[in-house]
Amino acid sequence: MERTHIAQLFANSQELGGQTVTVAGWVRSIRNMKNFGFVILNDGSCFNDLQVVMNRETLANYDEIASQNTGASLKVTGTLKLTPEAKQPFEIAAESIEVLGKSTPDYPLQKKRATPEFLRTIQHIRPRTNLFRAVFRIRSVAAMAIHEFFQSRGFVYVNTPIITTSDAEGAGEMFRVTTLDMANPPLTEDGAIDWSKDFFGKPASLTVSGQLNAENFAMAFGDVYTFGPTFRAEDSNTKRHAAEFWMIEPEMAFADLEDDMEMAEAMLKYVINTVLEKCPDELNMLNRFVDKGLLERLHHVASSDFARVTYTDAIKILEKAVEDGHKFEYPVKWGIDLQTEHERYLTEQHFGRPTFVTDYPAGIKAFYMRMNEDGKTVAAVDCLVPGIGEIIGGSQREERLDVLEERIDQLGMDKDQYRYYCDLRRYGTVEHAGFGLGFERLVMYLTGVDNIRDVLPHPRTVGHAEF
Amino acid sequence: MERTHIAQLFANSQELGGQTVTVAGWVRSIRNMKNFGFVILNDGSCFNDLQVVMNRETLANYDEIASQNTGASLKVTGTLKLTPEAKQPFEIAAESIEVLGKSTPDYPLQKKRATPEFLRTIQHIRPRTNLFRAVFRIRSVAAMAIHEFFQSRGFVYVNTPIITTSDAEGAGEMFRVTTLDMANPPLTEDGAIDWSKDFFGKPASLTVSGQLNAENFAMAFGDVYTFGPTFRAEDSNTKRHAAEFWMIEPEMAFADLEDDMEMAEAMLKYVINTVLEKCPDELNMLNRFVDKGLLERLHHVASSDFARVTYTDAIKILEKAVEDGHKFEYPVKWGIDLQTEHERYLTEQHFGRPTFVTDYPAGIKAFYMRMNEDGKTVAAVDCLVPGIGEIIGGSQREERLDVLEERIDQLGMDKDQYRYYCDLRRYGTVEHAGFGLGFERLVMYLTGVDNIRDVLPHPRTVGHAEF
Repeated sequence: MERTHIAQLFANSQELGGQTVTVAGWVRSIRNMKNFGFVILNDGSCFNDLQVVMNRETLANYDEIASQNTGASLKVTGTLKLTPEAKQPFEIAAESIEVLGKSTPDYPLQKKRATPEFLRTIQHIRPRTNLFRAVFRIRSVAAMAIHEFFQSRGFVYVNTPIITTSDAEGAGEMFRVTTLDMANPPLTEDGAIDWSKDFFGKPASLTVSGQLNAENFAMAFGDVYTFGPTFRAEDSNTKRHAAEFWMIEPEMAFADLEDDMEMAEAMLKYVINTVLEKCPDELNMLNRFVDKGLLERLHHVASSDFARVTYTDAIKILEKAVEDGHKFEYPVKWGIDLQTEHERYLTEQHFGRPTFVTDYPAGIKAFYMRMNEDGKTVAAVDCLVPGIGEIIGGSQREERLDVLEERIDQLGMDKDQYRYYCDLRRYGTVEHAGFGLGFERLVMYLTGVDNIRDVLPHPRTVGHAEF
Repeated sequence: MERTHIAQLFANSQELGGQTVTVAGWVRSIRNMKNFGFVILNDGSCFNDLQVVMNRETLANYDEIASQNTGASLKVTGTLKLTPEAKQPFEIAAESIEVLGKSTPDYPLQKKRATPEFLRTIQHIRPRTNLFRAVFRIRSVAAMAIHEFFQSRGFVYVNTPIITTSDAEGAGEMFRVTTLDMANPPLTEDGAIDWSKDFFGKPASLTVSGQLNAENFAMAFGDVYTFGPTFRAEDSNTKRHAAEFWMIEPEMAFADLEDDMEMAEAMLKYVINTVLEKCPDELNMLNRFVDKGLLERLHHVASSDFARVTYTDAIKILEKAVEDGHKFEYPVKWGIDLQTEHERYLTEQHFGRPTFVTDYPAGIKAFYMRMNEDGKTVAAVDCLVPGIGEIIGGSQREERLDVLEERIDQLGMDKDQYRYYCDLRRYGTVEHAGFGLGFERLVMYLTGVDNIRDVLPHPRTVGHAEF
């Protein structure tokens, strides 16, 4: 179809003034003043709506158009008129309008504002609302910014596998993947499931992290990153948890925890600056209607040096806060896993900017994190941001074969499952580090949207996998 | 670690001549000539290896270094010496070399060339070979080119869900995703699996396509694309099939089959040109050792206008070929699904360039493809390329509600499952089209590698999900 995108009209309105253009899009509203009327049209190419003016005298099918329902699709040809006095910089004076697809009076998006809960029941239609047009464009722009950031630094993008027969975090809570007939599964002689008959010849699950696979590639390419879906079968119905979410996991050879933090900080700033630059209309709307502190926070983070504190010092800060009368729900003591309330206190109240907390107790972190000299903490880092808490978790990896094997033993893990992982330490081991960024958390942070269900195109949570 | 990437040395060798640099990388080979020697080092930042020259007189730990095994990691400080007479443009005269991580005499990658079959058993090590360093860098560059192509045209990247409760192709052959205890699943009163007890409250599977979800977003943003993993639980052990693979699925509103083909052709050319520009060393190696026709083929495709033929005319061409004595394994007749041998005949022998075949019989294509005026063919298109056959499959979608509903009825499909899909035709339907590109097929095409197991970081196929 020969047409001009509405985004192009906004980008070049000065040059196009007085010219005849053809656009196509969906009706957001129609106002009929009997002899003239306004059609507000959007084609999805940008956040802005286009105002079309129609006149009974010049538009043969004026009544047909005036009677269309919200959501109908139209093709409009008309003259672009600059309107420097008006709120919108230009409008289209319609010469002809064709109905491409009608809508109905019960179109689910009516003028009155719908609740997020209702919109979750019409996920196929909700991308047409202002909120979701803003969220999902920002999501796309942020994804591209992440690719640009890493590719421009020479990182190789690796598609680590989704189906796995190992468990990176040793965490359990994984989804089983199978082709066995579950009502009638093949059994071994002693009555257990005979996994050798399953598609992969053994039990398989959905991955919780691509990190261990990414390390294979970091030992060849130096710097690599993943960006793909990961899964948790956690039965937790919160605003921050989804069963399926996207993760970015860079992995860098010849890098320590300091390099890791520098890369994480540079990446977050790059993404924020890119979204600030490319999505001003979306951010303005979100700042106005969703989170009044959004723009200020993004500008602040983009221009702050992130704070750095060890876990041990962070605990002292929190203990001091308790002494000074601050109430936390969870007790503070060296050895605890920090709760969101603790994280937010540190980044919001104490430091007032994004904060890296480093060197956590080994007991609360994964087996692959590098043991520090003190023998009780590991070279782990979490990045905490105001308003959210933890957004990034990373570590320097244990590159010493003997230390790693001892740790695997200590934790009673299946050594054979980590043979390949240990091989990387057997053949030319190097210090290396990486981190994981939950992409939906980032999008929540970039948009001010506080429910993960509203930043995923079609969220999967306990009891929900519609659409 | 303060170091210079080897890629930077190659990019700026003229400026760096005579300067002292520090690099780190892995030993690809060491030649010890008693009083001097050569270390060939690679850090993964580029395809090229770095030649390090060491001299017994000036290197205190000469014997330690000379005795290192292939695969060891080293940190080297030395002077960059331009060598305009030699094969490589420069070398490093080592002043000091530190062993970061030793390797062993039984390091799996020795000088003799390993078979692809053997390398598949050491997927954690194989990225360090020339073949896989070429393949996986090209994979990464091609992925980025695809994002660039669509983002620069205003497409919104949509992460359609991986876990699904519907079946886009109506094809079966899906992986079940569950958290039920398979040895002891909850049963309903009549002895069937009680899916209401499963994580999502109903049977769930891994997606075979994001298209139907992408259409939801195309009706809001106009132009969108997906790029993510898809799955087939097909029990086929061929060079072209994997259980897990990545797909790119653009979807465009206000677009017909002609627009679809133009976009597909432009995308393929953009990706090929980007890889030709960014990966010359990788392509030269592949052209020399893997597929001697590779570079010629890529240049040819990048500069050809793709041929276009209807399915009906393609059948006539194939029938004529049979008449003229050409032997096909599968019989040719209007109504058949084209086999790879037919596709390759068309694109290689008859047209000698990439070829779009359009307007297939409705009976062999999916329910959502737009019915043509003739009532027996649909607005489908396959893009065939020399050496591979089908690389892209697309169609204009059926945007007419009544025609779509009739087709769903005819095929005896569950109407309720497609209610949302039909809603898109109920509220402002527009003509729209899209296609699917199997990313691994594309990488095979770009590299000349003929087995899908060798273009996936860790391939998942029947009986195989190691690493």
